[in-house]
Amino acid sequence: MSSTPTHRVFNFSAGPAVLPEPVLQEAQRDLVALPGVGMSILEISHRSAVFDGVLERAEADLRTLTGLGDDHHVLFLQGGASQQFAMVPMNLLPADGVADYIVTGSWAKKAAVEAEKFGRVNVCATTEADAFTRVPSSDELHPTPSAAYAHLTSNNTIVGTQWPTLPEVGDAPLVVDASSDLLCRPIDANRCGLVYAGAQKNLGPAGLTVVMVRNDLTERAPESIPTMLRYAVAAKHGSRYNTPPVFAIYLFGLVMRWLRDMGGLSAMETRNRRKAGVLYDAIDRTGFYRGTAHPGSRSLMNVTFRLPSEALEQQFVTEAAAAGLSGLKGHRSVGGQRASIYNAFPEAGVTALVDFMVEFERVHG
Amino acid sequence: MSSTPTHRVFNFSAGPAVLPEPVLQEAQRDLVALPGVGMSILEISHRSAVFDGVLERAEADLRTLTGLGDDHHVLFLQGGASQQFAMVPMNLLPADGVADYIVTGSWAKKAAVEAEKFGRVNVCATTEADAFTRVPSSDELHPTPSAAYAHLTSNNTIVGTQWPTLPEVGDAPLVVDASSDLLCRPIDANRCGLVYAGAQKNLGPAGLTVVMVRNDLTERAPESIPTMLRYAVAAKHGSRYNTPPVFAIYLFGLVMRWLRDMGGLSAMETRNRRKAGVLYDAIDRTGFYRGTAHPGSRSLMNVTFRLPSEALEQQFVTEAAAAGLSGLKGHRSVGGQRASIYNAFPEAGVTALVDFMVEFERVHG
Repeated sequence: MSSTPTHRVFNFSAGPAVLPEPVLQEAQRDLVALPGVGMSILEISHRSAVFDGVLERAEADLRTLTGLGDDHHVLFLQGGASQQFAMVPMNLLPADGVADYIVTGSWAKKAAVEAEKFGRVNVCATTEADAFTRVPSSDELHPTPSAAYAHLTSNNTIVGTQWPTLPEVGDAPLVVDASSDLLCRPIDANRCGLVYAGAQKNLGPAGLTVVMVRNDLTERAPESIPTMLRYAVAAKHGSRYNTPPVFAIYLFGLVMRWLRDMGGLSAMETRNRRKAGVLYDAIDRTGFYRGTAHPGSRSLMNVTFRLPSEALEQQFVTEAAAAGLSGLKGHRSVGGQRASIYNAFPEAGVTALVDFMVEFERVHG
Repeated sequence: MSSTPTHRVFNFSAGPAVLPEPVLQEAQRDLVALPGVGMSILEISHRSAVFDGVLERAEADLRTLTGLGDDHHVLFLQGGASQQFAMVPMNLLPADGVADYIVTGSWAKKAAVEAEKFGRVNVCATTEADAFTRVPSSDELHPTPSAAYAHLTSNNTIVGTQWPTLPEVGDAPLVVDASSDLLCRPIDANRCGLVYAGAQKNLGPAGLTVVMVRNDLTERAPESIPTMLRYAVAAKHGSRYNTPPVFAIYLFGLVMRWLRDMGGLSAMETRNRRKAGVLYDAIDRTGFYRGTAHPGSRSLMNVTFRLPSEALEQQFVTEAAAAGLSGLKGHRSVGGQRASIYNAFPEAGVTALVDFMVEFERVHG
């Protein structure tokens, strides 16, 4: 669009995070008026035929990418994962039931604490004693027989851990907060009772929450909970009980199309393993950098590491930013560095960071 | 931005609705990378200094436009007015209290029905017997002594009515659903306990809900309600307890700046009265068109009218759309025509509609 090339930095933010540049360019080109429509996507009715098409294509592409079948609804909601922390127990946890929570980090813990407002919660595994630097092994899980559901966080942005594969949790429906790794690799969503994700890492912009939920689970909720918090209401109305976040759904659709163009989730996993592998290799090469997460639990999305001193860590972040590598400061609760390299993060940015790390170590090591 | 002129129709949609063209153009220009930032507004952290500035300016401009003082919080939320239908009683209605609801249309009724889930509701006035074609007069209001609050809908999009001024409701805090007319004219928000509005009519895109709430009222809520539904949590965290809808807040800020550039709310009221006046004059000129709302309750935002037959109404909508006048079909529950002419709707579009109406009457009258 622009006659001058647009300067963009490498954005390692944990979220909201980098989006695919072709997606941004298409959104920019059509922002004032969608071709053939004569209005902006920001102005069209959520009940128009144009938006029907946008929403249907977005959902169909998500189903194609994940293999999700007709036994699950796809819902486009608002409020982020934090609102799901309440909606999951309000909808799925009966008064006389108990829900299992696997606690692998701050967000998993917040989900469990919120659920306690609405029913009985059993923390069936936690790695807090290890400062959440790993996820539990299968023999550390102690599922409650006939739990209403079992909840876990598939990727933990703060410490930088990720389940290598989703664990077995017995007969309870598995509920997955996949906010920070959904679509980074193939996912057997059909096996899950419910998968939810705030969009602002791998899926699109902030302001959209995507939920895949098994049809029968939406029927559990009592009518007494707020209408807007009932999955059944969103399901019945095709995510349009009231006005949904139209632009965010449109952009989500463009991201789904980009993922298909990139070859789908297997191709994305290969690319993500390559990106993360290059970074972890750089961390492990000498003793100068130290990875935060246990090797078997390392995240493909959030690569966390420390330097020999906090002073050097501070300097690293400052000099990296000056070199066009933005957002490398770790979460305040763990310190150090965090490089978030979600699906849309370009391989060139990983190379640039590795080059910077090598040079930084050469000068300060 | 574009080298070819962008074709835009006149968009009379009830919402999501037309946005100011300068706002769309600025958003388009900066969509791939904000100047000096090197990332899109769709990609920046909600905890970055850049977004701090966006949010602070947006709030400051809203306060300047409305004269809102420090006794009120400004909150940027999600879920639309429908989520407020639950949040208002969950936060403000004690177990032993009662809330007054003035029912002037479908949305007001939905608000009252939702509130009944959470406490005692008294419909202290309704114009349902008149098919909601007017708002109540002051002597039709029967406020409950010591009500927890009194709720009303300031503009009713479906039938096309609007309170000429906000009524007196006794000592109870006035709670106003201003989704479809906020900032169409000056508002004494300081007098209100709480004002809420989905953004997608006068304020910005879908996916953002703006709330102005008296500080002390946020303290009423029990901690047992969902964290994300507590006004106090949003207030304490500056609307960033979790990731807010960053892009929608940015666009809201651009709309606030446009309103200031246009001369503020008094100038906007003058312009809106001129726009609506021209249309109502065209309706009243002969007996061919008939206004739906009582003259004393006519809306500045949604102008509703009927034609001599449903066949003619159908033809009117079809021919108008072909002439670049989009979205004139009335709500399915009342039929007829509806021309939504929110703040951003251009005066040229009103002139074009009047010309079309005159010609349509000449041919079919």
